[in-house]
Amino acid sequence: MRTVFWDENRDALCMIDQRLLPAKFELACYTDYRAVAQAITEMVVRGAPAIGAAAAFGLALAARQSRAGTPEGLLADLREAASTLGAARPTAVNLHWALRRILKTASEYPGPAEKLRQVVMAEAQRIADEDVEINKRMARYGAELIADGDTIIHHCNTGALATVDWGTALGVIRTAHEQGKRIHVLVDETRPRLQGSRLTAWELQQYGIPFDIISDNAAGYFLRTGQAHKVFFGADRVAANGDVANKIGTYMLALAARDNGVPAYAVVPTSTIDLSLDSGKQIPIEERDPAEVLNIRRDGQPLSPPGATARNPAFDVTPNRLISAIVTENGVVYPPFEDGLREVTG
Amino acid sequence: MRTVFWDENRDALCMIDQRLLPAKFELACYTDYRAVAQAITEMVVRGAPAIGAAAAFGLALAARQSRAGTPEGLLADLREAASTLGAARPTAVNLHWALRRILKTASEYPGPAEKLRQVVMAEAQRIADEDVEINKRMARYGAELIADGDTIIHHCNTGALATVDWGTALGVIRTAHEQGKRIHVLVDETRPRLQGSRLTAWELQQYGIPFDIISDNAAGYFLRTGQAHKVFFGADRVAANGDVANKIGTYMLALAARDNGVPAYAVVPTSTIDLSLDSGKQIPIEERDPAEVLNIRRDGQPLSPPGATARNPAFDVTPNRLISAIVTENGVVYPPFEDGLREVTG
Repeated sequence: MRTVFWDENRDALCMIDQRLLPAKFELACYTDYRAVAQAITEMVVRGAPAIGAAAAFGLALAARQSRAGTPEGLLADLREAASTLGAARPTAVNLHWALRRILKTASEYPGPAEKLRQVVMAEAQRIADEDVEINKRMARYGAELIADGDTIIHHCNTGALATVDWGTALGVIRTAHEQGKRIHVLVDETRPRLQGSRLTAWELQQYGIPFDIISDNAAGYFLRTGQAHKVFFGADRVAANGDVANKIGTYMLALAARDNGVPAYAVVPTSTIDLSLDSGKQIPIEERDPAEVLNIRRDGQPLSPPGATARNPAFDVTPNRLISAIVTENGVVYPPFEDGLREVTG
Repeated sequence: MRTVFWDENRDALCMIDQRLLPAKFELACYTDYRAVAQAITEMVVRGAPAIGAAAAFGLALAARQSRAGTPEGLLADLREAASTLGAARPTAVNLHWALRRILKTASEYPGPAEKLRQVVMAEAQRIADEDVEINKRMARYGAELIADGDTIIHHCNTGALATVDWGTALGVIRTAHEQGKRIHVLVDETRPRLQGSRLTAWELQQYGIPFDIISDNAAGYFLRTGQAHKVFFGADRVAANGDVANKIGTYMLALAARDNGVPAYAVVPTSTIDLSLDSGKQIPIEERDPAEVLNIRRDGQPLSPPGATARNPAFDVTPNRLISAIVTENGVVYPPFEDGLREVTG
């Protein structure tokens, strides 16, 4: 099953509700694009490529919801919907990439409104289908970077759940595993939302890949004691210079990798690369609800005192000097990144 | 109230049960040294200086429990108890320092067994009393490093709860606050046991010092965006070359501080300095129960899949090159640390 898909029977956009995993496996289905925008904000769906596909199908829903009888009217409604969907989360650029791609196709389509609705749906479906294929291509490039016997530190979730299917960084690990390489994964739990311990651990169990969950704090220990040989993560936006915005904590992980001569790889579809930004400094960083930091419990006990406040930036920017290579579906880009990133996106 | 104290009414060693905070404030009292060793292992009491005081009173209990009628017999029983207490946790050297100090006093005492029991208790009490005085001296030295308006990142808990009273790194922050400096603390939640969000946040509320809890992952973001000006932490053991063993995550935090030109300070009583070790590589690192990583919940949901395994190193070693200064009760030591550390401990 795909993480994000159009369900013909339900005639709705359906997604695995990632807030409930690993305790419950449930689908959330949508027929209103505004509800899709909210689902993206609330992280029913997360992971840059999965968000892109969800937004694409969100626009297809908006096309069906629009009562416009003319292509111009429908396009205006699509643009409004794209603005709502585009505001759902600020950091991952795939969201905007998918919306732009669909708006472009729609605006260039010469036929009537009713046909245009089908064109939009077909383009959304194409984005979803392509994502799976792109991930598998990336995975083959990336798997060449993994040696038999490697222990790999992985941050956040970048697997099938973060994409339409297969995954980016975790897709690389999965492909290396299928190639027969013996690998062990140290899964950063990835506070505050614990995508590592909740989602990545759950995926690795399904694939039969050996792993241990670690607190994010422990990554430096394993790197410094020579117990980890590679670091892999995805990204939510890559600037033209190779600066990588990714889940909060990636920067400190990449620093620790570099300090110990361990390579750190970002695995991204080219739709994550934003050549319009010179550097990572220009990437907007989402700050989420402090409750995400405050609301965990152990043994039923709340883990912060009543009245405590929190700050909760969801992403950080890892400067290009700490990135060993960026793996894309069109090849592996090494530093300096400028030319290579232009090439793979060209 | 002190974190660790001899209670005359109960005729017992009492400690604030730090496993229950901030939900419950409860004392745990002991009359058997073996139960004290277990309490140290289970982290009823934690924080290097507090563990040292607890172990000292543990030996005083052992002296009372011993049926030996001769000083030699009592000393043998004390040595056996010291070996049990010394094995309770491996990384913090204060534990061994306190045990050694009491055994030395006991072995040099020329009087009869009954008097020797009193001597041991008096020495334990002296260690506890001195800890408070030492912390306040450290705090005055350390507070000079804090400027009005500073935002300070703090890792783990190093406050009154980590010591007999006042605290090491948090003691410095508390003293700077009492001096009228306006400071804001970014409290690393400190996974896996969340000493930051549970204990440090609770202490800061009591002292009226403004703070926000952050996930450990977020420290790099605040450092890189210029929103944090100093980093403070304690230590569990400092080697002769200034390498600092401290709560897991300190190494990555210190790396991020250095990468952004932000000073990182370790605040330690000289009893934490272990000149017998040339470097941090020789410091034993405790690996604790994986359940500490796996057993947290959010909204009542378990946060890792059934059957998932974890690794749980409790400490890491920050190399001396990342430490800006080490604050002790005898002054601030700057790099290179070898001579200065010998001087302050001499």
